[in-house]
Amino acid sequence: MTESALDLTLLNIQRDDPVLETDFAIEMVRQMRALDAFGTYDSWPAAKMLEPFVLTKEQKREIPLVGDPDANVLSRVKAFYNAIAALIEKECALMAVPTINLTHEGFGRALITVGKLVVMDKTLRDVHRFGFPSLSKMKDEADKLLSVALEIIGEYPKAAGM
Amino acid sequence: MTESALDLTLLNIQRDDPVLETDFAIEMVRQMRALDAFGTYDSWPAAKMLEPFVLTKEQKREIPLVGDPDANVLSRVKAFYNAIAALIEKECALMAVPTINLTHEGFGRALITVGKLVVMDKTLRDVHRFGFPSLSKMKDEADKLLSVALEIIGEYPKAAGM
Repeated sequence: MTESALDLTLLNIQRDDPVLETDFAIEMVRQMRALDAFGTYDSWPAAKMLEPFVLTKEQKREIPLVGDPDANVLSRVKAFYNAIAALIEKECALMAVPTINLTHEGFGRALITVGKLVVMDKTLRDVHRFGFPSLSKMKDEADKLLSVALEIIGEYPKAAGM
Repeated sequence: MTESALDLTLLNIQRDDPVLETDFAIEMVRQMRALDAFGTYDSWPAAKMLEPFVLTKEQKREIPLVGDPDANVLSRVKAFYNAIAALIEKECALMAVPTINLTHEGFGRALITVGKLVVMDKTLRDVHRFGFPSLSKMKDEADKLLSVALEIIGEYPKAAGM
């Protein structure tokens, strides 16, 4: 698909949003491309690829409370936690392994381990409504998870394998 | 189903196998019952419930190399790692949380965490052929995983939450 054939109307992310230049957003785009086996996103700009991660209050309200997550939302959840694992790896130079465990109903657990250490352990619920109020809120959440993970590694460096 | 209506021919486990009296086997039976939402096993003796965990070489040979695990084998895998988590919990009086992450093709990872510590991390493959050569070999594997887990907790008690 050429870029001209693609609907590039952006509603929730500005094409020049400075957050798109951060390590986090660059890693997110890389992870989305890694999960894109059929090259669907090849011609998509970063803002378009990350837009489905942003759900305004109104958009969230339109999604039923109960629902099964589809393959697209699952790959977004994976991309988000994979990106956090990649950023942890970058900061501490140790392998960070993400594991996402979900039931069909969209409940579960996202874990990131470094060596013998659990550096992130998050309960997931309502995964079919996965999304953040804005791109910068998504980055805030990632920054928080990253800094907690690095703190845990700092506290137990030997268990992390340092 | 009454016991008399059930085929109680046992091929791989003797009804009086002393392993059936161990904490491990008792916990395995408890876990199998916990996953048995419809009460199918209510009238089954322990040996009959644990028999599907034992696959002789000949039985294993009959299972195709490549295959998708069905719901029964998945619940056996869960019961096995749940039992190990329960035994860890019993030994150290800290909550042990099992997480099993499998693709549809039967590859994946089984994790047990205690506090911030990964006390077991096992790569799973060919889950459709999950089974042990004998009941006592299954107990040996469980004992090994349990003792490694307790060793890790002993090494990093603070990360485990002690």
